[in-house]
Amino acid sequence: MIALLTDFGTKDGYVGAMKGVIKAISPTTSIIDISHEISPQNVAEAKFVLWTVCRYFPPRTIFVCVVDPAVGTNRKIIALKTKDHTFLAPDNGLLDMVLGQYKIKKAVEVTNERYFLKNVSNTFHGRDIFSPVAAHLANGIKFGALGRAISLNKSEEVIVHIQRRVQCGGIIIYVDRFGNLITNFKMKRMRSALLRINDISIPLKATYGEVGEGEFVAYFGSSGLIEIAVRNGNAQHKTSATYGSAVDLIAKET
Amino acid sequence: MIALLTDFGTKDGYVGAMKGVIKAISPTTSIIDISHEISPQNVAEAKFVLWTVCRYFPPRTIFVCVVDPAVGTNRKIIALKTKDHTFLAPDNGLLDMVLGQYKIKKAVEVTNERYFLKNVSNTFHGRDIFSPVAAHLANGIKFGALGRAISLNKSEEVIVHIQRRVQCGGIIIYVDRFGNLITNFKMKRMRSALLRINDISIPLKATYGEVGEGEFVAYFGSSGLIEIAVRNGNAQHKTSATYGSAVDLIAKET
Amino acid sequence: MIALLTDFGTKDGYVGAMKGVIKAISPTTSIIDISHEISPQNVAEAKFVLWTVCRYFPPRTIFVCVVDPAVGTNRKIIALKTKDHTFLAPDNGLLDMVLGQYKIKKAVEVTNERYFLKNVSNTFHGRDIFSPVAAHLANGIKFGALGRAISLNKSEEVIVHIQRRVQCGGIIIYVDRFGNLITNFKMKRMRSALLRINDISIPLKATYGEVGEGEFVAYFGSSGLIEIAVRNGNAQHKTSATYGSAVDLIAKET
Repeated sequence: MIALLTDFGTKDGYVGAMKGVIKAISPTTSIIDISHEISPQNVAEAKFVLWTVCRYFPPRTIFVCVVDPAVGTNRKIIALKTKDHTFLAPDNGLLDMVLGQYKIKKAVEVTNERYFLKNVSNTFHGRDIFSPVAAHLANGIKFGALGRAISLNKSEEVIVHIQRRVQCGGIIIYVDRFGNLITNFKMKRMRSALLRINDISIPLKATYGEVGEGEFVAYFGSSGLIEIAVRNGNAQHKTSATYGSAVDLIAKET
Repeated sequence: MIALLTDFGTKDGYVGAMKGVIKAISPTTSIIDISHEISPQNVAEAKFVLWTVCRYFPPRTIFVCVVDPAVGTNRKIIALKTKDHTFLAPDNGLLDMVLGQYKIKKAVEVTNERYFLKNVSNTFHGRDIFSPVAAHLANGIKFGALGRAISLNKSEEVIVHIQRRVQCGGIIIYVDRFGNLITNFKMKRMRSALLRINDISIPLKATYGEVGEGEFVAYFGSSGLIEIAVRNGNAQHKTSATYGSAVDLIAKET
Repeated sequence: MIALLTDFGTKDGYVGAMKGVIKAISPTTSIIDISHEISPQNVAEAKFVLWTVCRYFPPRTIFVCVVDPAVGTNRKIIALKTKDHTFLAPDNGLLDMVLGQYKIKKAVEVTNERYFLKNVSNTFHGRDIFSPVAAHLANGIKFGALGRAISLNKSEEVIVHIQRRVQCGGIIIYVDRFGNLITNFKMKRMRSALLRINDISIPLKATYGEVGEGEFVAYFGSSGLIEIAVRNGNAQHKTSATYGSAVDLIAKET
């Protein structure tokens, strides 16, 4: 199975061309869309979305991630293998959160043109390199045939694991369709805590249902991170927060 | 086959995660998207879209419908079987138009956690409950294994079946991408009739082609209901009508 | 395999209904989305997108193209066979660029109601005619069974093939999600050249990477045509150009 994550949108046919290429090389492979609506060239969004969804995919899924502002320059394309999955992406930080969470079995720089389309354009490696390479991997070629092995440094951890600290600072790392603000705070157990963002104080609860309509609430979101929401409303509009906005957590040991 | 209808949008990876879960449990099941662009938490839109499309799907399709403003509260999740199809949805009215049209063979409250993911979040039952339950159904588990049987009341009929009445009142129940206004009027045969909405009178015709460019026209839409459109234009913009706007039909027996 | 290209959007369930119809008639056929976000009734956009992607699809793909402002009038529906592919579309110019590039093996007017749904609506032939016809073709019915053979005139060529001309005029034929402006200029080899649009002069380069951030650049795009972009920016916003805007190319033989 091949799962696609891009910033190509769904209007222009770019994703359609990628799927055509994959199906022409590997007709029986299933293709699943994770998202094609990542904001143009926004690697941070793609990094978070990939991290939240990849754990739910079946073993042997190949993730093809193309948010690639430096396409056409000499940036590398990398391929990783974890215990369960394979990832293809430009070497621009898109895989940082995956690298932070999973043990890497193998990593290569993708350079073997035998698995590319014949005429590689300067602007659309999603179609000309990523898709055919993924399809050949789905067909069973050796991972090591893609290029030379490389070692990757673990990047600085994005997630703030909250232990006993009374107070700590974090950021908003994603804003979803509903205007929910996703922080980088992770806690093992539920505590009594307060979040502060743009001078607004928001209590940590177990679920939306514990506050009234239109009120702020923080809770452990479906990604395992603390989120800030407005019940049946839009927290982004009410806080004017955005990607990277500072948020503080004041926790008390229970 | 599993068909998905949600308000999750396609940007955030929520739908991708659902598909990952389904494919991990039931790798050979096809997944078809009905829509993920239902306006956030707009159960009325989802209800109409489901009703218009479900009749076109093959027997044994499992419809997974997640527009769920009360997720995380104690609202129920229900599963229905009609002669041809299976439906999963929150118990919030989303299935009302299906209930109005089809005979229900069986209905259960979905409570058997054996078919849920291990750690059910408070906010994303689409991924943690609906998707795995649908995948297990696709794999052939017994419908009755999901939970206890329940009986469902038919809700008040949304559709106004026009017989011999000279005049009757209805509402706009959906506005589509083209700005077409879909009424809840249904007639068996074509009659000479006039629709009135926001003080505009619009003749009922067989097709767009009977009026000039930019003119209003009403006709039997593809859902079987009367629609109001502007030929090669946008009726929503020209009428300022919206969901729930009142519309009158003045019919004459032919 | 069936590939879909429409202006139906993904909200209203129109595409979902088409897929339901296809799967009900031909359960094992794969369905790939090219785009459903063509601007409403914009045949020019659909024409370009189809032309750029179709060459990447596997042999025997059936392309179902429904951008159909004249649905419900007496416009024809046509089916074409090229060496590799089959195309279904309204007879409104949507297939002109395909006709310009590929040799047509057979063409028919689609009239045989045996392959339509029972009750054909006046407004949604995508569901009632195009989808069932495509599914029956995928199931192996004879192409000639769809209707009488017709001959199609090659339309005027959209693409400007630049040979030795020092200067020539063209137009913008597509604007993509990133604001890149795609011209109708095609050259065999790279030359030293300058493009002019709305009084802005833009040098032709091999890739984005040869200009600085925020600067204009022209290059051979992934479709084989010359595109105008702003590196990590939006050329549509910076030029105010749009579909049909005039653009000049001043080429020098290398």
